[in-house]
Amino acid sequence: MTAVGAAVSAERVVGWQRRMDAIGATANGGVHRLALGDTDLEARAALIEWAQARGYDVSTDAVANLFITRAGRDADAPPVLCGSHTDSQPYAGRFDGMYGVLAAVETLQALDDAGIETAVPVTAVVWTGEEGGARYPVGTLGSSAFTGRRTLDETLGFKDADGITLGEAVRAAAPGMVGLRQRPLGFPIKAYVEIHIEQGRVLEEAGLAVGIVSGIQGMRRMAIEVVGAEAHSGTTPRRHRRDALQDAIDIITDLRAMCMDDEDAIRFTVGKLSVYPNAASVVPGRVSFVVDLRHTDRDTLERLVAAFAERVKAHAGACTATATMLATTTDPLDFDAGLVAQAEGVAQALGLPTMQLVSGANHDAGPIAGVCPQTLMLFIPCRDGVSHNEAEHAEDEHLVAGTRVHAQLVADLASA
Amino acid sequence: MTAVGAAVSAERVVGWQRRMDAIGATANGGVHRLALGDTDLEARAALIEWAQARGYDVSTDAVANLFITRAGRDADAPPVLCGSHTDSQPYAGRFDGMYGVLAAVETLQALDDAGIETAVPVTAVVWTGEEGGARYPVGTLGSSAFTGRRTLDETLGFKDADGITLGEAVRAAAPGMVGLRQRPLGFPIKAYVEIHIEQGRVLEEAGLAVGIVSGIQGMRRMAIEVVGAEAHSGTTPRRHRRDALQDAIDIITDLRAMCMDDEDAIRFTVGKLSVYPNAASVVPGRVSFVVDLRHTDRDTLERLVAAFAERVKAHAGACTATATMLATTTDPLDFDAGLVAQAEGVAQALGLPTMQLVSGANHDAGPIAGVCPQTLMLFIPCRDGVSHNEAEHAEDEHLVAGTRVHAQLVADLASA
Repeated sequence: MTAVGAAVSAERVVGWQRRMDAIGATANGGVHRLALGDTDLEARAALIEWAQARGYDVSTDAVANLFITRAGRDADAPPVLCGSHTDSQPYAGRFDGMYGVLAAVETLQALDDAGIETAVPVTAVVWTGEEGGARYPVGTLGSSAFTGRRTLDETLGFKDADGITLGEAVRAAAPGMVGLRQRPLGFPIKAYVEIHIEQGRVLEEAGLAVGIVSGIQGMRRMAIEVVGAEAHSGTTPRRHRRDALQDAIDIITDLRAMCMDDEDAIRFTVGKLSVYPNAASVVPGRVSFVVDLRHTDRDTLERLVAAFAERVKAHAGACTATATMLATTTDPLDFDAGLVAQAEGVAQALGLPTMQLVSGANHDAGPIAGVCPQTLMLFIPCRDGVSHNEAEHAEDEHLVAGTRVHAQLVADLASA
Repeated sequence: MTAVGAAVSAERVVGWQRRMDAIGATANGGVHRLALGDTDLEARAALIEWAQARGYDVSTDAVANLFITRAGRDADAPPVLCGSHTDSQPYAGRFDGMYGVLAAVETLQALDDAGIETAVPVTAVVWTGEEGGARYPVGTLGSSAFTGRRTLDETLGFKDADGITLGEAVRAAAPGMVGLRQRPLGFPIKAYVEIHIEQGRVLEEAGLAVGIVSGIQGMRRMAIEVVGAEAHSGTTPRRHRRDALQDAIDIITDLRAMCMDDEDAIRFTVGKLSVYPNAASVVPGRVSFVVDLRHTDRDTLERLVAAFAERVKAHAGACTATATMLATTTDPLDFDAGLVAQAEGVAQALGLPTMQLVSGANHDAGPIAGVCPQTLMLFIPCRDGVSHNEAEHAEDEHLVAGTRVHAQLVADLASA
């Protein structure tokens, strides 16, 4: 059956995207919509108004996740959830998160247009604060609280740069949610589908409009600190130096060499590095940096992390070096193979060739998969893989094609 | 003759040093005496009071250099100058600069005690603002203005972190200099002697109390910027990355390899390096760093700088790299060989074994040597070579031994 996918309106999908592009629009063609900030709340208000006008049930929970539900035959059955997030990184792209929400919104309307009554409810969801290190230091706030991966207290306690806790931000958002039904965190769900821009170039290079995400990479982060001794750059001969930058470079070079896999599947990044005291005339006394390591295979992550720690421990340079694992780790996850195959079948029925690919970034689907085995992500291409950047771009035809697969898959899951 | 060297009073030398240690003293045993700041002016006031009480002529100039003159037979003859500076780096050591001023002060008094009338005047000098990057962005302010290496306008126009120009600071210091004779910049001088802590470990390792400085290293600074592309650390495969930190590391590694001389005479330092945007989850899009290169030989500096520029220009990584020479360069200089030999003779006559060594840091003697061929520096050891640090330490016996050589050499130069 492809009735729901076929009912997806290209005009509505693109129209919604253009409307949301304008909320928090930046001078350089991006958006600035920090979690529960003015522009994020403006986007949510537009969705609430639309949903109430159409008679959908609108509800929320203790962390301001937003749910828009189209009823099914069994109103009390666990729904099929679909959606993503409306918040963005600072001065970032228009599609990251928002597209998944709009595809969910269109899915409800396409179900209406196709005249389908599903067995269970279908709920479009906006997860609060998916973008880590944007307004709040960590991401997937709403979905992690929903699944219990983080406690409610910890979640509401995170502070933004102005010292405003998430709890305070949730209370400040309440006027826009007056009259919405309040739901408990973690109500049962039957399945979860999230569509997102790829944030990589795999689909673009393959020339495909839609990809089926087979899993999400795991991540490990390690902070490494190298301590030497500050010294005068003019008077200190090489034999007396304990140059922390030099030793840090040696360590980074060795760690990188361990990650030169032929498959180009290991993601090794040193993105954050600080030199102290950072003066041209002073041999650096201390350098700290963070290694960000990602891979689809947990054993590979563990093996590399152990090898990194061993290399740091065995450091034989003039400086001392210590490694500390950071708490922001996730294990790789594989989405349900049956569901992946089902999504491939849906795309094929709609005449859209697809491929399987792995998500390099974490998404709300990561926490949700921990409590809902029937979780899946779909990707559409974005130009040059650029994301978290105002230049982020997705083609209208890809927005529409992705929404067709999304709508049909959700309809099928809710009808089974 | 060793009468003046022998007349040096250990008690006075150490007493002056302890008195000055207390002016701007820090909790960790160092001093904080920024150029023409309160504590620097307090130190100068103590010197002026002492000089006036003893009947020496005290004078100043347009950049607040301070001159204390003991008359000679020919009152109008160009004097022998000796001294250093009273300002310090922030929270730095007690001996850097100040010791050279106190040795000059003791030299005047030892001449008195020995009952010597010199042929020409002997002038103890305090040069304004020797420490670059402390209160003002560049150093040797007073000596460079004195010699015309920098114009008066440029010198007085430098601003501190609060936007206060050196000109304003000089005017603010005027109340402490009321009644002092005003002299033109760059009056003729017969010779210049400056004694300083070594800020390295050569004398300490050789077990010597005094060293004769044969010259000052030259310095070149090059700013290198590497521009790649910011990318998501989770989604961007190696083949698509343009990692600015990786390319910066490759360049630094290559430049460093060019500096591995057997003599360990080349001073190659990357002390300042910044990563943008400096986030763990973002492949660095830009890295900038400064190469500080020092050597005693101008040709070596020029050869290395050309090789560095060539390496950067030929950079074949994924990123682009550009190199810019910075204006803070100095050429190496050799002090007059005859004067070096004369100083060795003075030390020998005083029973103090010495060696020749090169200064890794620039000093006021650098600019002065440009206008006065009879310029020389002497060094005493400092513990572990530590300087620009509150832990800086020099032994009392070395302070005294150095002052004996300094006083006798100055006396001989002023008597010839």
